[in-house]
Amino acid sequence: MANSAIQRLLHPRSIAVLGASDNPVKLSGRPIELMKRFGYTGRLLPVNARRAEVQGLPAYRDLDEIDGEIDLAMVMLPADKVADGLRDCAARGIPAAIVGASGFAEIGARGEHLQRQLEAVIAETGIRVLGPNCLGMFSLRDRAMPTFTSAMDDSSALVDGPVAFVSQSGAFGTFIFSAAQHAGLGISHFLNTGNEADLSVAEVLGGLVETDGVEVLMAYLEGVHRGRELLAVARRAHELDKPILVVKVGSSEAGARAAQSHTASLAGEDAVFDGAARQHGIVRLAGQEQLLDTAQVFAGGRRARGRRLSTLSLSGGAGVLMADVASDNGLLVQPWDQAWQQQMAAVIPAYGSPRNPIDLTATLISDPDLLRRGLDVAVRHPGTDMIAVLLGNADNASAQLIDAIEQAHRATDRPLVVVWTGGSGRPRRRLQELGIPCFTDPGRAAAALGKLADFSLRPPLPEPQRPDDVDEQVVRAIIQDLRDEGRTQLDEHESSRLIAAYGIPCAGAFPARTPDAAVAAAHELGGPVAVKLLSGSIGHKSDIGGVRLGLTHDAEIRVAAEELLTIARETGDPGARLLVQRMAAGTELIVGVKRDPAFGPVVVVGFGGVLVDVLADSRVGVAPLDVDAAERLLLSLRGSRLFGEVRGKPARDLGAAAEAVARLSWLAHDLADDIAELDVNPLLLGEAGEGVIAVDCLAVLTPAE
Amino acid sequence: MANSAIQRLLHPRSIAVLGASDNPVKLSGRPIELMKRFGYTGRLLPVNARRAEVQGLPAYRDLDEIDGEIDLAMVMLPADKVADGLRDCAARGIPAAIVGASGFAEIGARGEHLQRQLEAVIAETGIRVLGPNCLGMFSLRDRAMPTFTSAMDDSSALVDGPVAFVSQSGAFGTFIFSAAQHAGLGISHFLNTGNEADLSVAEVLGGLVETDGVEVLMAYLEGVHRGRELLAVARRAHELDKPILVVKVGSSEAGARAAQSHTASLAGEDAVFDGAARQHGIVRLAGQEQLLDTAQVFAGGRRARGRRLSTLSLSGGAGVLMADVASDNGLLVQPWDQAWQQQMAAVIPAYGSPRNPIDLTATLISDPDLLRRGLDVAVRHPGTDMIAVLLGNADNASAQLIDAIEQAHRATDRPLVVVWTGGSGRPRRRLQELGIPCFTDPGRAAAALGKLADFSLRPPLPEPQRPDDVDEQVVRAIIQDLRDEGRTQLDEHESSRLIAAYGIPCAGAFPARTPDAAVAAAHELGGPVAVKLLSGSIGHKSDIGGVRLGLTHDAEIRVAAEELLTIARETGDPGARLLVQRMAAGTELIVGVKRDPAFGPVVVVGFGGVLVDVLADSRVGVAPLDVDAAERLLLSLRGSRLFGEVRGKPARDLGAAAEAVARLSWLAHDLADDIAELDVNPLLLGEAGEGVIAVDCLAVLTPAE
Repeated sequence: MANSAIQRLLHPRSIAVLGASDNPVKLSGRPIELMKRFGYTGRLLPVNARRAEVQGLPAYRDLDEIDGEIDLAMVMLPADKVADGLRDCAARGIPAAIVGASGFAEIGARGEHLQRQLEAVIAETGIRVLGPNCLGMFSLRDRAMPTFTSAMDDSSALVDGPVAFVSQSGAFGTFIFSAAQHAGLGISHFLNTGNEADLSVAEVLGGLVETDGVEVLMAYLEGVHRGRELLAVARRAHELDKPILVVKVGSSEAGARAAQSHTASLAGEDAVFDGAARQHGIVRLAGQEQLLDTAQVFAGGRRARGRRLSTLSLSGGAGVLMADVASDNGLLVQPWDQAWQQQMAAVIPAYGSPRNPIDLTATLISDPDLLRRGLDVAVRHPGTDMIAVLLGNADNASAQLIDAIEQAHRATDRPLVVVWTGGSGRPRRRLQELGIPCFTDPGRAAAALGKLADFSLRPPLPEPQRPDDVDEQVVRAIIQDLRDEGRTQLDEHESSRLIAAYGIPCAGAFPARTPDAAVAAAHELGGPVAVKLLSGSIGHKSDIGGVRLGLTHDAEIRVAAEELLTIARETGDPGARLLVQRMAAGTELIVGVKRDPAFGPVVVVGFGGVLVDVLADSRVGVAPLDVDAAERLLLSLRGSRLFGEVRGKPARDLGAAAEAVARLSWLAHDLADDIAELDVNPLLLGEAGEGVIAVDCLAVLTPAE
Repeated sequence: MANSAIQRLLHPRSIAVLGASDNPVKLSGRPIELMKRFGYTGRLLPVNARRAEVQGLPAYRDLDEIDGEIDLAMVMLPADKVADGLRDCAARGIPAAIVGASGFAEIGARGEHLQRQLEAVIAETGIRVLGPNCLGMFSLRDRAMPTFTSAMDDSSALVDGPVAFVSQSGAFGTFIFSAAQHAGLGISHFLNTGNEADLSVAEVLGGLVETDGVEVLMAYLEGVHRGRELLAVARRAHELDKPILVVKVGSSEAGARAAQSHTASLAGEDAVFDGAARQHGIVRLAGQEQLLDTAQVFAGGRRARGRRLSTLSLSGGAGVLMADVASDNGLLVQPWDQAWQQQMAAVIPAYGSPRNPIDLTATLISDPDLLRRGLDVAVRHPGTDMIAVLLGNADNASAQLIDAIEQAHRATDRPLVVVWTGGSGRPRRRLQELGIPCFTDPGRAAAALGKLADFSLRPPLPEPQRPDDVDEQVVRAIIQDLRDEGRTQLDEHESSRLIAAYGIPCAGAFPARTPDAAVAAAHELGGPVAVKLLSGSIGHKSDIGGVRLGLTHDAEIRVAAEELLTIARETGDPGARLLVQRMAAGTELIVGVKRDPAFGPVVVVGFGGVLVDVLADSRVGVAPLDVDAAERLLLSLRGSRLFGEVRGKPARDLGAAAEAVARLSWLAHDLADDIAELDVNPLLLGEAGEGVIAVDCLAVLTPAE
C-alpha cells in the first residue's frame, strides 16, 4: 500500500531516528533537537547502539527494542551503512524511511554503487524511501520534523498554513521555505526529495494533494524523470481545485546544461514540460519570489469569476501602472459603466476618477474613510471580479485604512489584494496576518492575480476519449509489414496511410513507377498535381529537388517524373517510385509527433513558414489530447491570430485543425512504442467549413528490439 | 539663465517660504518643520504677514523685508493667490519657485484658468517654476527640503546617495522614495514636477545630470509632452555615463486611457516613447521594484565589460535558476575553460561543480572559507565580466561570508552582486551598507545586471550626419507644386520622387495614360512588369484590385491596363493614370514615416507579411538616425533572424536596408513640417551586396495652414 506509506511519512505517529546523536548541534542530533523544541506530538524514538539516553529521551539500542508500531524511520547513518539500516527498518515493519546521508549518485561514479544497493533494498523490501541526499521533511500540523535543516536555527515559532512545499533541492528549498516564513506565508509541510532513489516529487505531491488542510501545492523541480506521474497528480489536483505551483529550472540552454551537471536530473526538453504543465493546469512560475507571491493569493482560497479587475488607488499614477501590468498579465481593467461611475463619484473627491482605475486621490491620507466609502461601492459592483487597493507610505493613517480593507474583504468573496508601497512595512504584515494578500509592487500583485485568474477559469480536464472511427489495426498491420522488412523509415505514401487510418484527410495521391503511370495518375486525380519522389530511404526530398508542384500538362508531368527518377538513381535509391498528388491550398500548419524521455508521446504544433522558422513559435501537448485541449494548444501559438480573419483572408477552420491534432495525438498514444517520430508538414488548413488536408507526411519507427 | 535658475532650485542657499505656518503639522508648516528637523544648511526665511516668528524662526511680513539674495521661493499659498505671489517673487529677483497648491489644470475646467494665469506670469517674468500641484523637492546634500511630503514623518535619518529621482506623480513618487530608503538606496534629490506649468521632468533631469555627485537619474513619468527635450538630456547623460532609469506608465491600452483621465498628460503612443528611449540609452523599467533594483546595481558606479556572468552558489539549483534568468536577460553563463575549471575544482568539494554556474555546495555553511577560496579564483578569471554570489539562510555563518564577499568586491572592479534568499535579512542589509548590491531573488538580480550590461555596452550616440547627396530642394519643389494645386495626397509616382531625391533606389517605372502607352513603357523597361493604378485620390489601390503583377506579354499588359482604367472610372478618379513598373524581388520590409505629437518625426520599420500583420512586430526610431542606429533598429525586430541565412536563403543586405532607413529618417526630419506620413511598402531587400529597392510608396502632406 504505497499510498498508505506516503501518508505515514507525511503524518507519522511515531518516528525512529537511527543513529540519533546526543549532541543537538550535530546533523544526526538535529532531528531530535527540532522535534523537542517544536513539540512533536507523536512518539520520538532515538536509536543509538551506545547510549541509553539521547538528548534527555530514552534511547533504544536497536529497532527491535521498540514496542508498538513505527510509522517512519529517519536514517541518520553514513552512506555505506544505509542499505543495512533500511533492511532492518523493513524487517521491523516500518513502511517509510528518510535517508539523509549524501555520498550516493550525486557524487558520481563513487556513489553510484551505493545508490544501486539502496535501490535494490527498496525493490526487495517495498519500503518507501525519501532521499538519499535529502534534508528530510517536516509537517507542522503534528510538529513531525525528521530533518536536519538549519533553516529553523533562528526560529522559536513557525507559521503554519494551507501551503505544502516539495523541493528536489535541499538548500534552495529551505531558502524558499525561510523566505515564505518571513513573508508570512504559512507552510504546512516541507519535503526534500533529494536523489529520488524511490519517492519522486510527483508521488509526494500525490500524497499531499489528498491531505485535508493542504490547499496549495508548491514544488521546486530541477528535472522530471517520470512526467506522467506528475500529470496524474495534476489531474487530481485540478479536480480538487488545489493549484500546483511549480518552479522548474533549466528553461534556458545554459540552465539545462547546468542542471545536468548539478544533479543526476535530466532537465529534459523544457518546452515539453511547459506544454504538459499548461495542459494540466499546473501553474509554472519563474522563480521563488513569484512562487511565494502566487501562493499568497491562492492561500486565501478565493477564486476569480472572471478577469475584470477594479483598482482603487491613493495615487492616480499607481492606478495607471497597475492597469498596464494587469493587462500584461491577462487581466482586464475596464471603465465602469456610467451608473456605477456615478455611485463611485458620489463618494470620492471631484478631482479623483471614478472610471476604473479608480483614483481616490491623496486626500485619502487626511480622510482615510474615503477608502471605506470607495470599497463599499466596489464590493457591490457586479462587473468587478477582483479588487486591488493601491496604497503607499501613510503609516499614520494605516489603522483606519486596514479596517476599511478588512471590512471590504469580509463583505465580498472575490479576491482582494493590497499593494502597499513604501512606509514602515508594518501595515503590510498586519494585512498578511489578516489573510489579505499584500504586495509592495503593482507588477508582482498583477502577476499573482493573473495566475489566480488563469487557474480559476481553467478549462475542464476530462480524460480524452479515443475517436471511435480510428483503425488501429490497419496501422499495426502496416508497421508489422515494415518490421518484417527490417525497415524503420516510412515513405510518404506509407506515412500517409498511418494518419489516414486515424481519420486525417490526406490529399488524393497515387504512387507511380514510370512517367506514363504518373500521367495516368494525374488524369485519374484531375486538376493540377504535385509529383514527388517516393522513397523509404530519402528523408528530406524537397532538399534535393524531389518535389515538383502545380503541374497541369501531361508534358510537364512527364518531364518532372523523368527528372525525379534520375535524381533517385543519382542519390542512391534506384528503387524509388513517384507519388502523384492532387494540389491543395490553405494555411500551412506543422503537426509533429515524438517521444519525450520524461513525458512519452507528445504532439508539437506550429504554423509553417516564418513563424516556426524565425520565431520558433511552436507548442507541445502531451498525447492523447481531446479536441478542446487541441484547440487551446493551437490558440496558444503566438501567431494564433492567423486562425481568424487576417490580411483579407476569412477565418480558418480551427475546429478541423483541432480535430486533426487530437487524432494525431491518439496515433502517438496508441503506437507510442512503435512511432519514434512523425511529421505532417504541411497540414493545410482551409476556411471555416473546408477542413484540413495533409499534403506531406513522414514517419520513422523506433528501432527494432 | 534658465539653467542657473534650475541649479538654484536644486541647491538653494536661501529659501523663502511664502505663507509659512507656525503649525508644523499643517501642510504650510511642514517645509519649515522638515528643514528644521533635518538641518537645512542655508538661510530659511518664513514669510507670514501676520506673525513675527514661525516655528521659532524670525518671520518676515513680505519678501521686501528680507535682506540679501533669495535663491528659491516655496509658495504655500492657495491656488488663487499663487499668480500674485509669483509676481512678487519675480519682482524680488527670485529666480525659481515651487508651487505646492492644487486646484489648477488637474481639476479640469475650474482650474484651467488659474493654470493659464500662472503660465502667463511665468512667461512674463521669466521665473522658473516647479509645479503647481506638486509636493516640492528636497536635496539631501544641503538638507534643503521645500516640500510638504509626509514621506519622512517616521524618519529621523535619511540615506543619502548618488541617485536623483524626478517624479511627475507626487504620491507615487514618495512611495518609491520611501521604498528606496527602506531598501537602503540613497537618494540625493527628489523632485515632483506636478502639473508642469513650466519645468518638465526633462528640464529637471537636465539640471541633475550636470550635478556633481549625482551618478544615477531615476524618473517616473505619466506622459511626455516635449519628447525632444528628454532626448537631449539623454544624450548628455549618455556622454557623462550617467544612466537615466525610467518608469513610464501607459504602456497598455487600459493604462493609456487611464493616464489621460488621471492627469492632463497624454500617454502618447507608447511604442514611440519606447523606441526613442532605446535609441538614446534610456533604461526603461516596468515598475518601482525594478527601478530600485536597477538603481542599486548602478549606484555602485561599476560597469560591465561584457555579458559573461559567473555565478558561485551555495545551492546547485539556485545556480541553475540564475543561469535561466540570466539568459532571459541577455547575459551569458558559459562554462569556464578547462584550466580555470581546474583552478576552481582545486578549492571546492569534489561533488560541487567548477564549470559555471559554479556549485560550491551546502558545505559552505559549515566551511564559510570555501566562499573566499572560490571568489579568489573568480575575481582572477579573465573570462568573467560580472559575478553573482548566491546564498541563502545561513545567518550563523554570515559574518565570514560577508567578509569573503567584501574582500572579493575590493579585489575587482567588475560588478559583483549577491542574491541572499531567506534568513533574517540582516546579512542583506549589511551588504547593502557596504555598497554591494544584494537581492532576494535570482530573477531580480539578473534583470538588474542585464540592464547594467546593456547600458555599459551601449553603442555610441553621435549626432547623425545628413548624407551629402540628398536633394532637399527637389523635394521642396515637388511639395510646393502640390501645395499650389491644393493637394495633400501624393500618388505613387510623386511619392517615389520624394524618396528617390533622398537616395532611396526605386524600381524603374513610367506613368502611362493608355494601354498602348503601358505596353510601350513595358518595352522600355524590359522584363516582367507590374501595372498599377496611379491616382492622387485612391489611397489603397491594392484593396480595389488596382495592382497587377508579373505581366510579360503585350496582351496581358493591355488587358490589365484596360481593366485598371475601368476601375479608376468606376471608383471616381477618371483622371487616374497607370504606372508601369519593373518587377523586383526580395525580402519585404515596411518603412514608414510619421509625426508623433511628443517626439516629432519618427520612422517605423517592420517586415512585411505575417510578422507585422499578425505579431505587430515593428519598431520606432526618432528621426534623424545614423546608419548604425538604423541597423540596430532593424536588428531589434523580433523577426531579425530574417536578415541572416534562413530557410535556405542567403543573408540579406542589412547594410543597405539600414542606409535606406537612415535616409528616410532624414527626409522625415528635413520635411517634418510638410510630411504627415509616408510609407514605403514594400521596400524589397536583396541578398548581401544587392541592396534595396522601393516598389511602392505613398506620402501624405500635412494640411495647408
